[in-house]
Amino acid sequence: MRFGITARMASKEATELVHQALVFLEPEHEVLLEPIIAKKLGRNGVEIEDMDVDVLIAIGGDGTILRALQHTKAPVFSVNVGSLGFLTEVSPDEMLYALERIVQNDYMVDERIKLKTELNGERLHDSTNEVVIHTSQIAKIRHFQIFIDEELVESVRADGIIVATPTGSTCYAMSVGSPIIVPGLSAFVIVPIAPFKLSARPMVISSKSRIEIKLYEPRKNCILVLDGQFDIKMTPKDSLTISLSEEKAKFIRFGQDFYRKIKEKLGV
Amino acid sequence: MRFGITARMASKEATELVHQALVFLEPEHEVLLEPIIAKKLGRNGVEIEDMDVDVLIAIGGDGTILRALQHTKAPVFSVNVGSLGFLTEVSPDEMLYALERIVQNDYMVDERIKLKTELNGERLHDSTNEVVIHTSQIAKIRHFQIFIDEELVESVRADGIIVATPTGSTCYAMSVGSPIIVPGLSAFVIVPIAPFKLSARPMVISSKSRIEIKLYEPRKNCILVLDGQFDIKMTPKDSLTISLSEEKAKFIRFGQDFYRKIKEKLGV
Amino acid sequence: MRFGITARMASKEATELVHQALVFLEPEHEVLLEPIIAKKLGRNGVEIEDMDVDVLIAIGGDGTILRALQHTKAPVFSVNVGSLGFLTEVSPDEMLYALERIVQNDYMVDERIKLKTELNGERLHDSTNEVVIHTSQIAKIRHFQIFIDEELVESVRADGIIVATPTGSTCYAMSVGSPIIVPGLSAFVIVPIAPFKLSARPMVISSKSRIEIKLYEPRKNCILVLDGQFDIKMTPKDSLTISLSEEKAKFIRFGQDFYRKIKEKLGV
Amino acid sequence: MRFGITARMASKEATELVHQALVFLEPEHEVLLEPIIAKKLGRNGVEIEDMDVDVLIAIGGDGTILRALQHTKAPVFSVNVGSLGFLTEVSPDEMLYALERIVQNDYMVDERIKLKTELNGERLHDSTNEVVIHTSQIAKIRHFQIFIDEELVESVRADGIIVATPTGSTCYAMSVGSPIIVPGLSAFVIVPIAPFKLSARPMVISSKSRIEIKLYEPRKNCILVLDGQFDIKMTPKDSLTISLSEEKAKFIRFGQDFYRKIKEKLGV
Repeated sequence: MRFGITARMASKEATELVHQALVFLEPEHEVLLEPIIAKKLGRNGVEIEDMDVDVLIAIGGDGTILRALQHTKAPVFSVNVGSLGFLTEVSPDEMLYALERIVQNDYMVDERIKLKTELNGERLHDSTNEVVIHTSQIAKIRHFQIFIDEELVESVRADGIIVATPTGSTCYAMSVGSPIIVPGLSAFVIVPIAPFKLSARPMVISSKSRIEIKLYEPRKNCILVLDGQFDIKMTPKDSLTISLSEEKAKFIRFGQDFYRKIKEKLGV
Repeated sequence: MRFGITARMASKEATELVHQALVFLEPEHEVLLEPIIAKKLGRNGVEIEDMDVDVLIAIGGDGTILRALQHTKAPVFSVNVGSLGFLTEVSPDEMLYALERIVQNDYMVDERIKLKTELNGERLHDSTNEVVIHTSQIAKIRHFQIFIDEELVESVRADGIIVATPTGSTCYAMSVGSPIIVPGLSAFVIVPIAPFKLSARPMVISSKSRIEIKLYEPRKNCILVLDGQFDIKMTPKDSLTISLSEEKAKFIRFGQDFYRKIKEKLGV
Repeated sequence: MRFGITARMASKEATELVHQALVFLEPEHEVLLEPIIAKKLGRNGVEIEDMDVDVLIAIGGDGTILRALQHTKAPVFSVNVGSLGFLTEVSPDEMLYALERIVQNDYMVDERIKLKTELNGERLHDSTNEVVIHTSQIAKIRHFQIFIDEELVESVRADGIIVATPTGSTCYAMSVGSPIIVPGLSAFVIVPIAPFKLSARPMVISSKSRIEIKLYEPRKNCILVLDGQFDIKMTPKDSLTISLSEEKAKFIRFGQDFYRKIKEKLGV
Repeated sequence: MRFGITARMASKEATELVHQALVFLEPEHEVLLEPIIAKKLGRNGVEIEDMDVDVLIAIGGDGTILRALQHTKAPVFSVNVGSLGFLTEVSPDEMLYALERIVQNDYMVDERIKLKTELNGERLHDSTNEVVIHTSQIAKIRHFQIFIDEELVESVRADGIIVATPTGSTCYAMSVGSPIIVPGLSAFVIVPIAPFKLSARPMVISSKSRIEIKLYEPRKNCILVLDGQFDIKMTPKDSLTISLSEEKAKFIRFGQDFYRKIKEKLGV
């Protein structure tokens, strides 16, 4: 098999795990490394986009995985290094056991829908969790208009708007009031951040719908954040549309654990 | 065409509208009346279940419509008499114009999913809005266990649990924190009423899932309320399952107005 | 010292603890028992109201304490038997140690404000946690009008209204969205239960204010529940006022633990 | 009487109202102008801090008033120019009538508590509405520790924390879930912005308490925003305390209209 590795290199533990993975895999498998990792080990690196691999190993936290998913179409096997790890699959001490199962072909691929974002017709990176449109001036609200399939459905002054997938419904979106959406449902949720409107509510829509978000006031800008990875300026003149991507986020899993993770999180 | 009529007969206005509808329709169409209405007019009545009609006219509020939908498979044309009318289609002064369009075949049928409820294997009436399981003792919480496809996903002490359709997501469910779910989405939302658990959240699931709700404590009963129409006792020994009905609720519409109604409600 | 004892006699553990307390206290102190307990032990009992004691020992859960506080002006020392125990002070195995501290006069009294409720001018029992006005028909909303100091401040259709003290703000009121109010603040919070009004919000008011709640619709009744103890029918003709009681709920404490309990509850 | 005038000079309507006020007042009263206004009229201006006036006239929106209140101890008479005006007292066409009442001494002063903020012991401007501590990187949460009277009461990862007065409880704080707090209550409310913690709740505390907020992680900064006016950088090394100011915000009123404004806002 061909493997790629990306990791949060600021973490010593991640660096050590990269080493362990190499020792375990390289006798029989080809392993490509991101340039930043490769450099540390005195090897040649390959950008994630250019890796033609069967499995991409992501060692780090949710940020590491989300970033990896923006650059690969391969299934991602994730090892949690750091505090949160809501998206990650195994803990560091389970890594080698899990890799053994992968090379034995004993795993599942959990496919999740992604959001396609277009700014003025130009396609940005897909998002596995959410697209955030946030006022660029902290504590200064913006006036947003939300169109679904070309119909104006909400007009609200708020700090921002989150459009999330079911995967993202338990992350940032949840902290501003999103319901939990089970992964299998092909739906998006639209939630305002700090809406200055008592009647504002989260809205769950079909993933077949096309969302357009406009800034209503002249000269008041926003910042666009995709899966916490990119900060792109958005002005009232920009056209922003969000819809279902034809790509999927692929997570390597060893068991059906959605409800278990939710239950841990919710304290059932 | 064959019409049936049901109405909230406690209302004078509804009685007058029944009269107007009869004057308008009877020259050319057959009209069946519910027994309670028929009796007032000195005619013979037919129960809604036994009406084999093309269109059922429901004159009243949301309660009148929801009750009608529990007893008919015909599309329902609704005239709003009373305060709320979130589900109703036209106001009293639009009734004759709307009937004219119906006999001209100039209308749409808006099909909505319904909930099938089984108590100990016995099928109860379907629900267009929601199924409520509520403590039978006011202000005394119950301990509920919620299973989705046989997996325990929530265990919560609360006043009750609401399982709602997208249609119901803007009614009772919304008053306890449900998101708005657009009508086209084949999903249900499960929301606790007054949960004594800070982490409880609404959960949106696929309509393909089968929900089972159990009362965890011995000798503490609940009341089951389907679309506000029936009060059925439920004990901890009872088995309650909720799933997608093969029947649809059919609303006669003259325009796509979901977002308009939501916008009125939300004050956009 | 003179002690009184009340206990949840359905619980075997409570009965055993009553026995232990008697063995510990009676050599040197006088102990009065509620009739239901006294009868089991073949003694003469005294109603809580008629006990002229220095300390009332309440063995049971929050319900036992709240009921005790409705009948006594003495400070209450509470031993938690049962699951919840948000109001209780010590666990069963700490009881004797705590009693030793009480007879040594080594304890604090934590005074909390109480709600005075008048129905048609007749004073009902005071409430330490909350007054609930709830629709008497499950899943059938009522229209409430809330007046503060004779000014109409809210008109809302809901399942009910909760008026809570700071002590009650972390109990039933919290499950419908109340903020946490620290015990020292002389304030009440008014929270609707399942309001059919998107803009409804909890309201925190001065404890000097006088609250009046009216049922707006004719012939639609409610149930009044004070600290979960009494179920009193309320009709639209009834006049209900809630204000600060001149009495306090007195809890015997051995440490300042409000934030600790909140932290346990909130998972800090 | 001595008057001062501040206005949102970007607005033509505000400029015209300044002119009207001068024509009305100057025959008999002294009027001082802010430098930016004075310059437009070819006069000499005086900074708000240096105006020793009986009444400060603020012509603009809530931002104009909040800024004025940070620089004056005089009572503020506010004329609403712009959309929101939750804090403002009269509309433009009521201005001259209201000024007539002021010079006749026929008005009330509504005193509201303010927040005192100290950063590393240095006192910043007081806040009438709220103090916001917000992550300086949009969509990147921070870990906050909240101490009340030196006790740790909350530890939460969030976009930010709002500490608000009763006056501010219906502004920014409300958009993240604050209850309404009536103006007379001497209390503060602490509310997290987008908390990544399901159990987080608003907390209402006595205004006698001293709040300290710490950034828990190294090298992750925040922005401090006082009444929407100042953006000050805050690092994990900074010590931030918030308590009751000895100064009051003084609003000139012509009627008791708190509940009326709330009712308009809430749609009673």
